[in-house]
This record gives sequence, C-alpha cells and structure tokens, in this order.
Amino acid sequence: MSVAASPAPSLGDHLCENGFGCIEILPSTNDAHGGVIVDLKDPMDPQVFASLLKSSLLQWKKQGKDGVWIKLPIELVNLVEVAVKEGFCYHHAEPSYIMLVYWIPKTGCTIPPNASHRVSIGAIVLNNKKELLVVQEKRGRFHGIGVWKLPTGVVDAGEEIFEAAIREVKEETGIDTEFVEVLGFSQAHNSFFGKSDLTFLCMLRPLSFDIKRQELEIEAAQWMPFEEYAVQPFNQKHEPFKCIIELCIAKMERTYTGFCPRPISSFFSKDLNYVYLNSKDLHKSS
Amino acid sequence: MSVAASPAPSLGDHLCENGFGCIEILPSTNDAHGGVIVDLKDPMDPQVFASLLKSSLLQWKKQGKDGVWIKLPIELVNLVEVAVKEGFCYHHAEPSYIMLVYWIPKTGCTIPPNASHRVSIGAIVLNNKKELLVVQEKRGRFHGIGVWKLPTGVVDAGEEIFEAAIREVKEETGIDTEFVEVLGFSQAHNSFFGKSDLTFLCMLRPLSFDIKRQELEIEAAQWMPFEEYAVQPFNQKHEPFKCIIELCIAKMERTYTGFCPRPISSFFSKDLNYVYLNSKDLHKSS
Repeated sequence: MSVAASPAPSLGDHLCENGFGCIEILPSTNDAHGGVIVDLKDPMDPQVFASLLKSSLLQWKKQGKDGVWIKLPIELVNLVEVAVKEGFCYHHAEPSYIMLVYWIPKTGCTIPPNASHRVSIGAIVLNNKKELLVVQEKRGRFHGIGVWKLPTGVVDAGEEIFEAAIREVKEETGIDTEFVEVLGFSQAHNSFFGKSDLTFLCMLRPLSFDIKRQELEIEAAQWMPFEEYAVQPFNQKHEPFKCIIELCIAKMERTYTGFCPRPISSFFSKDLNYVYLNSKDLHKSS
Repeated sequence: MSVAASPAPSLGDHLCENGFGCIEILPSTNDAHGGVIVDLKDPMDPQVFASLLKSSLLQWKKQGKDGVWIKLPIELVNLVEVAVKEGFCYHHAEPSYIMLVYWIPKTGCTIPPNASHRVSIGAIVLNNKKELLVVQEKRGRFHGIGVWKLPTGVVDAGEEIFEAAIREVKEETGIDTEFVEVLGFSQAHNSFFGKSDLTFLCMLRPLSFDIKRQELEIEAAQWMPFEEYAVQPFNQKHEPFKCIIELCIAKMERTYTGFCPRPISSFFSKDLNYVYLNSKDLHKSS
C-alpha cells in the first residue's frame, strides 16, 4: 500500500492502483489472521465514512482479506449506524467503545466468539483457632437474610485467580493473606444476560487478624468459629454451601488436596502465567 | 403504574400522576436490583425515542430507580446515538443487539461488569495402549509447524466444561469419550481484545477408537504413542506443553488426582449445576 501526496488533510489512506488514480480508503492495520482492523479515533462526517467504508470494502475484497474489524469509541457513536447499514454486526462492546465486524468470504467464518464468562472467587480464610473470616453484605442476594458468608468477588480480565482472592479479602475485611489452594470450582449458567459464571473456591492463610471492614459494601465482618458458620440454617439448606462446609472440614482434617498455582512461561508471549494443579500428587513418586 | 386509555396506538407506557394529566414513558420492567430494563423490539422514530427517553429518565429518578438498561436489537441501530447523547454508555454487545446502561444515583455505582473471560478445554484422550489422540489443525497458531496437538475448543456460555470436552473431541475426531477429571487449568491474559482465556486440561477415557476427522478444521488426526507425542521438539521447548506431558505421565502412573464434576442443586434456581473437586480426598477418612 502506498500513500499518495495530497494537498488536503487526509481522512483515510490513499491507495494507488496501477497508476490510474488514487482511491481513498479507511486507515487500517492487518491482523494476524488475514483480516484488517480499523481503529478510528477522530470524528468523521457520517457520509464521508459511508463512502470510505464502501471503497475500503471493495479494496479489501480484492486483496483477499477475510474479517474486517471496526473499533469505534463511544464519541463516534454517529458512525455506528453507517457501519451496520453496510452489513457490519456488533461483535462486542465495552463502556467506552463498540467493536463491529464483517466477514468477507462466503464461507468458513472464523470470527472468534466474544467473552462468554464472568469469573469469581469465594475465599475460605481459616485461622489457627478454626475461626472462619465471614462477612455480611450491604446489598445483593445475601442482604437482609442474616447469613454470614465467605468474602467473594469478581476476577478482572488480566488478573490472576489467586491475586483476585487475596485482593478481595483485603478490600472487604482488611485482612492480609497468602494463597494456599483452589479447593474446587463451579459454573452457574444464564446468570447475567445469558453469560455463565465460573467461581473458584479458594483457601487462604491469614497473615493479619485485625478486621477493617470496607464500609461501602460490607455491613459486618468477623472471625466466626467454624462450627457456628456451619450450622447456619441457610448453609444447611443449600447444596453449594453444604459443599463448602464439606471442603472446609476435609481441609481442616488435612486430607484434601486442591490445585496450587505454579508460574509458567507463556506460550507465544513473554508474560508469566500460572497453571493450577495438584502439585502434591504431581511430585509423588509412583 | 397504570395505563391510561388512549385512542392512538401507544408508543410507550402512560403514567398518570395525581390526576394531573399523563406522561408517556418507555415500556420497562423492574429488575431485581432496583433498576429498570427497556427491551425495545419495534422500530421507533429517533425523535420520539429521544423525547420518551427524557421523560422516562425523569420519572425513574422520581421513583428512586438506579440502573437503567436499554436493549436495542441491531435493527434499531438508529436509536443508539440518541441514548448515548442522553448519557448512556455501552455495557455489552452481541452480534444481534447492544445493551446500554445509565446509572442514576450520584454515587455507589453497582453496575455488574461485562463478561471478561473466554473458557476453553484441552482434551487428553489416552487409550489402553498408552496412545494419545492427537490432531493437526488447518488454521491458527499451530498450523503449518507440523506439531501434533491435543484436541481443543471453546466452552460456550451455558455449557458444562466436561460436556464441552466430550463434544469437542467428538466433533474434531469422531471419538466417543467419557469424562474422567480436570487435571489442571491456566489463564492467559490480554489474548483477545483485552479479555482473558481460561483453559481447563481435561482427561477423558475413549469409548470408541475409529477416527473420523472433521474436514473443515482438522488436517489430520491419529492415535499416537505417548512417547512419540512427548518428544516433539515443540513440546520440549514450551513450558505449558511440558506441563501437559508431566500431567499425562503422572496420570498414567496413577499417582495424580484431579477434580471431578459432581452434580449439585443450583442456588436460587432449579437448574442442576456441577462443582468440580477432588472427590478422592474429600471422601477419604481422616
């Protein structure tokens, strides 16, 4: 692709074909899978955008491109309708932008799916006196029913599961912890606009003991004797909570092995990731 | 909320206040958290929508509502700009619709986050001859480098992890399996538009042995002696793949315990979910 000299400020890229004049197309970069990405940042007149989009699609078809991605910041909301009228679909949106996508070939669409899951943690923090760190929340499904529950929270995109568990416990209760193990996990489906929730039950060891409750979300927090936690009628009634109690007991009696995080070099990247596995059994000689 | 008699076809809900005339507002339902949801399905003139949205917001503020959700199918893309100009943000989008959100109170925004993760499986299918079911893919990062890899695939929203593993193995290779255990899992961050990938390494037992390759995505599939899989230079070079080999060996020598799915009644729902845990250790007497 060559850029033609132009006296006027350029709205798009200029593509010169065989010396027979120039076609202006949208600025784009190639992705790693045979497609192009348009990442618009500056305002553009919708009619100019419509015209550039048409000529760009023709060029990309000629070039044999497949997926065309257009990322529009929310400030450029006036261009969304133009793209949809040209045949683009929504792919995903975040508060500040929308990503639109168009698949050029007639067959074999390989547009990757949008994120499908929210990931959460529940934190079992047991001290040496067999007291469990529990909270009551100011809102949500557990509010107002008098139940003392585990600290819980959402794992952000880009955050490690064990880091999220340590962070949430600290945020809600002020308690410092170190991560021990994932004791189990479960999914709940169709919980929020058709997405699935994946929750990791995490065991942590307390490193501090003075509770400083987060006032915005947490009504109360305390160290509660495990037996008192276990006999709450709510916990006796609901299977997932009975299961948490079972796992706590198994863990206190030291018979249960969960998954521990092990740092590992990423694949095709320089980042450090974590794999969670049963390291006790892995290193046991057969 | 009462609906006033109106000779003209109604565009929205009619809200009568103290007998002093009626205000037309958008049709909405209350959500379980003090907010309202507008689920528009029929075309509406953008100016009418703008006017209804303004009067609706005033009413919802008076009523003490907090979060306001507007779901617009892609056919109503001409209304997106109106909502954004009124102060709405994007919350999420799927191919066929966009969800916009507006938080009325000045403080304490509790709008739940959008889905943050994609969930995948990798399938270890080992037969009694210590042969591993492996494939070569027609596209993607593994294409063209000659590596034999595990069958892998994406867990859909609403799908169980063990079901996804069985389905993907069947789709790619035609092999029927039963699920044994999750041997471990890992996250990869910032892998796709800032989202995170969470991959579960699953052990499955083959129930059939004749391979029927899926022609669209799979270049080749075979039962490969485990030793031959393990010595592939690619597997020796990359830590995540060395880890898979380690786990296979630990499992073949029967020293490794992973997490098994156990059906469990859902919380606040009649659905059956699954919790994945180390059932061997859980039922071991202390």
